[in-house]
Amino acid sequence: MAQPIDHVNHRRPRKRVAVIDFHRISYVIGMMLLVLTVFMVPPALTDILAGNPDFWVFFGSAFVTGFIGLMMVMSSRGSWSEEIYLKEGFVLTVASWISLCIVATIPFIFFGHGLSLTDAWFEAVSGLTTTGATILNNLDDLPPGILLWRSIIQWIGGIGIVLMALIMLPFLRVGGMQLFQTESSDRSDKIVAKSSELVRLIATTYFVMTAMCGMAYAAAGMSAFDALNHAMTTIATAGFSTHDLSFGHFENPAIHWIGFVFLLSASLPLVLYIKFARTGDFAVWNDTQVRGFLKFAATAIIAMSLWYYATRDVALIDALRIVAFNSISIISTAGFTLGDYTAWGPGAVGVFFLFMFMGGCTGSTTGGIKAFRIQVMLIASRNYLRKLVSPNRVVVPVYNGKQLPTEISTSVLAYISVMFISIMVFTVVLSFFGLGFVEAVSAATSSLTNVGPALGPQIGPAGTFAELPDNAKLLLTSGMLLGRLEFFTVLVVFSRDFWR
Amino acid sequence: MAQPIDHVNHRRPRKRVAVIDFHRISYVIGMMLLVLTVFMVPPALTDILAGNPDFWVFFGSAFVTGFIGLMMVMSSRGSWSEEIYLKEGFVLTVASWISLCIVATIPFIFFGHGLSLTDAWFEAVSGLTTTGATILNNLDDLPPGILLWRSIIQWIGGIGIVLMALIMLPFLRVGGMQLFQTESSDRSDKIVAKSSELVRLIATTYFVMTAMCGMAYAAAGMSAFDALNHAMTTIATAGFSTHDLSFGHFENPAIHWIGFVFLLSASLPLVLYIKFARTGDFAVWNDTQVRGFLKFAATAIIAMSLWYYATRDVALIDALRIVAFNSISIISTAGFTLGDYTAWGPGAVGVFFLFMFMGGCTGSTTGGIKAFRIQVMLIASRNYLRKLVSPNRVVVPVYNGKQLPTEISTSVLAYISVMFISIMVFTVVLSFFGLGFVEAVSAATSSLTNVGPALGPQIGPAGTFAELPDNAKLLLTSGMLLGRLEFFTVLVVFSRDFWR
Repeated sequence: MAQPIDHVNHRRPRKRVAVIDFHRISYVIGMMLLVLTVFMVPPALTDILAGNPDFWVFFGSAFVTGFIGLMMVMSSRGSWSEEIYLKEGFVLTVASWISLCIVATIPFIFFGHGLSLTDAWFEAVSGLTTTGATILNNLDDLPPGILLWRSIIQWIGGIGIVLMALIMLPFLRVGGMQLFQTESSDRSDKIVAKSSELVRLIATTYFVMTAMCGMAYAAAGMSAFDALNHAMTTIATAGFSTHDLSFGHFENPAIHWIGFVFLLSASLPLVLYIKFARTGDFAVWNDTQVRGFLKFAATAIIAMSLWYYATRDVALIDALRIVAFNSISIISTAGFTLGDYTAWGPGAVGVFFLFMFMGGCTGSTTGGIKAFRIQVMLIASRNYLRKLVSPNRVVVPVYNGKQLPTEISTSVLAYISVMFISIMVFTVVLSFFGLGFVEAVSAATSSLTNVGPALGPQIGPAGTFAELPDNAKLLLTSGMLLGRLEFFTVLVVFSRDFWR
Repeated sequence: MAQPIDHVNHRRPRKRVAVIDFHRISYVIGMMLLVLTVFMVPPALTDILAGNPDFWVFFGSAFVTGFIGLMMVMSSRGSWSEEIYLKEGFVLTVASWISLCIVATIPFIFFGHGLSLTDAWFEAVSGLTTTGATILNNLDDLPPGILLWRSIIQWIGGIGIVLMALIMLPFLRVGGMQLFQTESSDRSDKIVAKSSELVRLIATTYFVMTAMCGMAYAAAGMSAFDALNHAMTTIATAGFSTHDLSFGHFENPAIHWIGFVFLLSASLPLVLYIKFARTGDFAVWNDTQVRGFLKFAATAIIAMSLWYYATRDVALIDALRIVAFNSISIISTAGFTLGDYTAWGPGAVGVFFLFMFMGGCTGSTTGGIKAFRIQVMLIASRNYLRKLVSPNRVVVPVYNGKQLPTEISTSVLAYISVMFISIMVFTVVLSFFGLGFVEAVSAATSSLTNVGPALGPQIGPAGTFAELPDNAKLLLTSGMLLGRLEFFTVLVVFSRDFWR
């Protein structure tokens, strides 16, 4: 039962969890829609510049979105108080992602080109959640406006994830994220103004990284338009490309290496770069999560490259490039492709399926389980093993130099269990929607971990999701949102206990 | 660090964990080998009666096994003390399963018929762990002795599992099994003589169930030999048959229903029947695990039967029979087949893949996750969800009318996490051994959950494991042992901490 406010003990403050002010939620979401409206202008201008009549798609969408956003803000003016309570936090997080997805769908609906309502929704959700699965299979012939829109929603989704992971999830204590509580979230029961400083820093970092990535791509030979689009979707570890062949379109090793470097950089916590800019100390090796992630990625890439080099007729440097790009693309849950790795043989398929689960570090734009959860799981299992051997010994598990409370291990183990249960349930349902076993398991996994491409000839790295039945497409979008919101955020809002 | 014995505080006794008396272990294993020697006589007699020259296979094996067993017992005479300490318990459990597997291999080696050493080992491990995957694909033409031997090792494996689950694992506290501590294991640090009463009761129950099952099969029209073999492998939920077509060989609905009833009965805790015999009270619905398992099985079977009935031209009673038999066969991890369910369409493949993970109740012969762990996982996740909503509320999770300690939830979650990690690792390695994705994932799962058949045309319900590469066969046997010993039992013995 929720604590009535007048029972609050002020010496040991209890969370005021029960307050849900829908006006305040409406205000915040309205503001987000207004921001999204602004982002509809560049695609419109691009289409005008390209002499494409499609520009009305974005002006029309901007009009609709702006109108709705303005209505929501006006009707709930004055309700913003810079304080958010627990239950409000859950509702706000889930409602804002769903709202943004709905609005991001509008340009795809207006765009037409044979896109059904389901297809438009699929593309929008896949974009905003930075999954990167697409139902469009003639990207090279599409007008620039819609391509830019796809990249923009991934870019917005990417920063949305980072901010959610840094500010909202530690506050909500979802999936062990309380381990990453910052000053703005661990002291009290509300998110206070201090966050705005963090938001500003993160946004700046994100923007600078994107600019650097775009300039590098352009310098290596990409057109300005391609460089812009790929920079946005690289830093968001998202995976939409402007070409059907994805990075395979660019027969230029330099571009592949730039992609590799920025995908790797975007898999690390963004606060790392802020710290670096402030202190000049690039403290990569002091962070258990970053060290573990880099070790895993390096080991996997080197081993796979040697295998690739040994089993076919290719220069070692090319083997390294092809393996490194494709591996980091799946590990970081971006989902760009450079050739069809599923054609490398059964061993590669197994490894890339494993990669789908990984994800980068918490506080980055990546999806998946993420390095810290895998580490906490291993520590918890090892700790359990030790207790089996010596029941009387008191073992204090440590993570990143700090004691690891049981609460965190339990959160993480519950997260991983629920993730696997979800994959199983999605697999069964997708099977009944007619997908073969490989397609069903891999599509379930790929959507719930926000990777993008699945396995198999149809929806693998060389295919698109266009031909799937509508019910499968809708199910997969719910999987993308469930995975993106780290499962429990959604489950909580849809639980009976929440609304009692 | 282990506690030196003289530090033991006698008022709150600490576990004396460090004592490992290899003489004692050798004595117990030697006794087991002598028991196994006795069980080699019936196959020899069967071959003599059938006029088959193969009888020497079993006399030879009995000679070798008996000799080794006698040596082990004689050399360690007098060391048995009816007390086993913690570390000893781990070593004894792992060593005895491996020893029995090695000895069970001998008749298959002597048998010849083109079986390589790897094949013989595979068949023996698959038998003793009651997995039921086979590399023999001409069962109908084989001499009766070897068929009987296959059934006997499954039957012995079955009772071995029940006794291990009731006596050893709660004592070792593996995978949350301390929830099932009985008087004989929860009071002190050693397994004492009280266990022998339990062993006697379980053995009697197991024997009576097998006899009833065999008589029912014979009454329904099976030959005496088939009835004996299938009764042994049914009650052990093991899966070896005397026919390539498994239960598809018997075109007799009554036999299928008898199989269904006894597979279901064997999926419940055997102590249930002991209680019933003593008190006349068949307390099925008072046990959370049994209730949950029966509800799940009933729901799954009814839903699948209706789907099967609706999608093809078959009588409802036949749909129910075919679906019920195949479903309980996989849920109980027996692995008998009645037709090829993977030909029912993609939906069925997804469902049967899910079934592979389930298992029956703890204290039965089944493998897999088992009902109680799934329930504890759901309770832990639900509890965590509640805490997210109301951080101040004290929620005490309850299982089977008793408070569920955090220790148990953590054990169970660690168990499930380690199981999924193992499936992933096995999948990757099997992929590199050349198995396709479907084969690799399903063979990894099927061996680690001790089901038997995997998916795909080669190793699915209609195939055998004969054509797999040797390294894959060896890996799968290690998976069967790992799963059978509930992961942590093996991991503990192979951990560095154990031997420090």
